Amino acid sequence: SDLLKAADAVSGVGVDQELISSVPSWNPTFVERNFTESEVEYCRSQPSPAASFAARWVGKEAVFKALGVASKGAAAALKDIEILPDTDTGAPQVTLHGDAKLAADAKGIQKVLISLSHSETVAIAFAQASTSG
Amino acid sequence: SDLLKAADAVSGVGVDQELISSVPSWNPTFVERNFTESEVEYCRSQPSPAASFAARWVGKEAVFKALGVASKGAAAALKDIEILPDTDTGAPQVTLHGDAKLAADAKGIQKVLISLSHSETVAIAFAQASTSG
Amino acid sequence: SDLLKAADAVSGVGVDQELISSVPSWNPTFVERNFTESEVEYCRSQPSPAASFAARWVGKEAVFKALGVASKGAAAALKDIEILPDTDTGAPQVTLHGDAKLAADAKGIQKVLISLSHSETVAIAFAQASTSG
Repeated sequence: SDLLKAADAVSGVGVDQELISSVPSWNPTFVERNFTESEVEYCRSQPSPAASFAARWVGKEAVFKALGVASKGAAAALKDIEILPDTDTGAPQVTLHGDAKLAADAKGIQKVLISLSHSETVAIAFAQASTSG
Repeated sequence: SDLLKAADAVSGVGVDQELISSVPSWNPTFVERNFTESEVEYCRSQPSPAASFAARWVGKEAVFKALGVASKGAAAALKDIEILPDTDTGAPQVTLHGDAKLAADAKGIQKVLISLSHSETVAIAFAQASTSG
Repeated sequence: SDLLKAADAVSGVGVDQELISSVPSWNPTFVERNFTESEVEYCRSQPSPAASFAARWVGKEAVFKALGVASKGAAAALKDIEILPDTDTGAPQVTLHGDAKLAADAKGIQKVLISLSHSETVAIAFAQASTSG
């Protein structure tokens, strides 16, 4: 029934990977365009800021894919997808702002889960969007 | 209760990766055996056909793992797992045919979500199968 | 309603990757500390034991992330997260023991799905924890 269908449904998944060296986190314009102030502060406090920026970058791309929105050109700035550590567990948490939030709301998406990983050279992320939480 | 358990349940997940160079998409027999005509047409229209074939290849393997079926020898041809872009969003969508569809039906799987990613060298995919959608 | 919310909810996801060469499966102390006897037996029976140990290692890390517990220092030994092939399908299955089981129970987690993949050089895993199954 419709009620039961409303209980919980994963609406989209997203995976993304990138060489850490190919994410230009040394470029202030790139950083300012794509990361929030809190994200920048967090990444710069980490043992390897380049790896942290790259992990967040692929994380944003993975969330974007999980949201299943049409185009990422003008539509949704990656800065609108904010990934910060949970104050309790340290696990990465997604907060949507602006157009990303509007797109998620329009699709009934209420929860976006994320996991990040980086080796010496590669950052990878997985995201999952659900219509309830 | 049984009714509630029927609401939505992820029954399996699958991840797969491969070096793009190790997927023999230059081999017509390999391509014909594993990809549908629509998939071939789509991959050949992409900027890097080799990367597109490799991403679909690992996508099919990831779907296969998410379905949780016993053996992939004679049981299910990867060609029965078709991955094509959604006409609206461009996001990859899974359609099951033949034995793969029978296996999914037998397990009550009604939805398979997929996400693909490739860097310069590596293709990766994640799939998720649910018993409702 | 609360009843419907209880039906099924993915509570966490986890991804992890590692170079196979960086997982010291040649070290008996490392193996004994992190793998159960059944896991050791299984990995040693595989074509590439090093790849199998590495895949399980990243699998345990991915499960740990999916559980969303606070710290992995003293809190939960990776040995408490056991990953063995399903006797029927060969697909990897997660069984939690000890502190990992306590942590999962405390969060209402009843199901943990896992998928593993390894190439020649890299092992990768994805895990998903749900509050019902």
